[in-house]
Amino acid sequence: MQVPLKPHADSKSALQAATEPGISTSVSRLTGGSLILLDMQANETQVCVRYAETDQMGVVYYANYLVWMEVGRVEWCKAAGFNYRDMEQEDGVLLAVVEAQCRYLHPARFDDQVIVKTSVKKASSRMVHFGYEMRRAGDGRLLSTGETKHLFCGRDLKPVRLPARYYAQFGL
Amino acid sequence: MQVPLKPHADSKSALQAATEPGISTSVSRLTGGSLILLDMQANETQVCVRYAETDQMGVVYYANYLVWMEVGRVEWCKAAGFNYRDMEQEDGVLLAVVEAQCRYLHPARFDDQVIVKTSVKKASSRMVHFGYEMRRAGDGRLLSTGETKHLFCGRDLKPVRLPARYYAQFGL
Amino acid sequence: MQVPLKPHADSKSALQAATEPGISTSVSRLTGGSLILLDMQANETQVCVRYAETDQMGVVYYANYLVWMEVGRVEWCKAAGFNYRDMEQEDGVLLAVVEAQCRYLHPARFDDQVIVKTSVKKASSRMVHFGYEMRRAGDGRLLSTGETKHLFCGRDLKPVRLPARYYAQFGL
Amino acid sequence: MQVPLKPHADSKSALQAATEPGISTSVSRLTGGSLILLDMQANETQVCVRYAETDQMGVVYYANYLVWMEVGRVEWCKAAGFNYRDMEQEDGVLLAVVEAQCRYLHPARFDDQVIVKTSVKKASSRMVHFGYEMRRAGDGRLLSTGETKHLFCGRDLKPVRLPARYYAQFGL
Repeated sequence: MQVPLKPHADSKSALQAATEPGISTSVSRLTGGSLILLDMQANETQVCVRYAETDQMGVVYYANYLVWMEVGRVEWCKAAGFNYRDMEQEDGVLLAVVEAQCRYLHPARFDDQVIVKTSVKKASSRMVHFGYEMRRAGDGRLLSTGETKHLFCGRDLKPVRLPARYYAQFGL
Repeated sequence: MQVPLKPHADSKSALQAATEPGISTSVSRLTGGSLILLDMQANETQVCVRYAETDQMGVVYYANYLVWMEVGRVEWCKAAGFNYRDMEQEDGVLLAVVEAQCRYLHPARFDDQVIVKTSVKKASSRMVHFGYEMRRAGDGRLLSTGETKHLFCGRDLKPVRLPARYYAQFGL
Repeated sequence: MQVPLKPHADSKSALQAATEPGISTSVSRLTGGSLILLDMQANETQVCVRYAETDQMGVVYYANYLVWMEVGRVEWCKAAGFNYRDMEQEDGVLLAVVEAQCRYLHPARFDDQVIVKTSVKKASSRMVHFGYEMRRAGDGRLLSTGETKHLFCGRDLKPVRLPARYYAQFGL
Repeated sequence: MQVPLKPHADSKSALQAATEPGISTSVSRLTGGSLILLDMQANETQVCVRYAETDQMGVVYYANYLVWMEVGRVEWCKAAGFNYRDMEQEDGVLLAVVEAQCRYLHPARFDDQVIVKTSVKKASSRMVHFGYEMRRAGDGRLLSTGETKHLFCGRDLKPVRLPARYYAQFGL
């Protein structure tokens, strides 16, 4: 349920172009600010488009890109050295979404291999802001870009500070 | 998968506060511009949160708000005097999404009645821009706001002009 | 993702043909058995097919019928005099699915109004067995029949006995 | 939304126990019948449970197992030497579901790796009957078994005969 469209001029610069495997935190963080701009390298993971994810337009239904972003986040965590599942279970820290945005540049279709590149755009002990680029494997066609903003919360969904043991993973 | 958060200052003004049933096009359109700013009144429809829509955080999974926006759009069309289904089938005109955005202010929970208020923020013969407000029925608590931008497309997903017979419905 | 097919001969007799609004427990229960055969009247609720629920075959994706069955169960509970939500929250009793089955007779399409008729086929203090009939509103065309079997469980998903206060609702 | 339960005695024998990679058709087909019983070896594929697939019970929502079965079918086709996508696009042959069934033995949870073993139980030039076993990777715990029956259909969803070029793949 999306359409070919020329990529917005800023959609590329908004996300890191790292191609190295894994994630390494950067050195370009701003000092003295409560919110730290990161240049953390991106992690890439791949999804194969499911029939269930298409709609009668013959392409992927627009809400499903947000599911792929979730897949990207979970794999980003693993590449950063921890499991999001453990963070929830053991530390009781949840990543509650406060904002999500997606631009649809070219439709994904059933059985396409889609590479989801996920990076942290900003992080503090209170929140984290992820950026996403979704490309079709093979020809590298940019399908979609997106962003999600999250607050660290407890099981009661009230905001908490990120436990210090995760600071390094988020580049803090 | 979202969290209580103070509403953004602009989230209310971004959407019309019309409470009248049905939709009436406004008179405040800008003249001389290819893109016309509308003050079209909103249509309200209601969804009951399904168990399927929750996640293990105990609240509605964030992508499902985009599904409710789709429900809102479809009902907006009916209130405006046409069926989106017929527009696709009979005229071969599809509303392809090019951008979607959602802010999560307060979590929706299983079996909540959610009122989706949908309005057209802008429209031209090429595109339409919808705005959404999602409130919990009963106490009126604002749960979420969102926006989607669409291009009118043919069955091949290439952009087309909206047929003139739909101009009035979109306030053109 | 289903196809026109002649209804199986037994698909109709497997479900009650009650058309009365609401639910009234029957008097035809078998005595002396641990599992009681009910003739509880069915409850009907309606869903409007969402675009999200279709797939590229142009019809509703097969898994979504199970979501409609859930909608049917939740509304059955309301008609029987209690909210499933409250049973979970206040009594800590969950309806865990142990088996689900669906026959697809005729495809549902976007924007179809679908009537989901839900009835209890069997119930004991340990389990409940629901039956479903899904028909297109208007012409009454039978789209699908289904069944789900559930165990009453605690929050730890271990089997429990249904609290006595719910016996009457389930015809026990 | 499922619960620990002792596996049904017949749930294992209903599906082949092949562990070899790929698929090879068997020699045990019955002769002289229009419907041929196959002993085709199974194909295994793996899914990682998404947060989107869980519900507020803390486990995977029951309808999502049918999505995994679809993933299993698509991968079975690839292992058998063709892409289901191509069969739809190039031959206009669709696998329309006429029946689906699932038994829930043990709940799958977020981030579990689930191995979906898919096999063809029966096939003719008119229909195909798939069987599924879903196990948790690592400990091999059986989570679920299922079956789906499909008719080969054209784009108009009317039954057709499977093109002869696919006979070998389905063991015909």
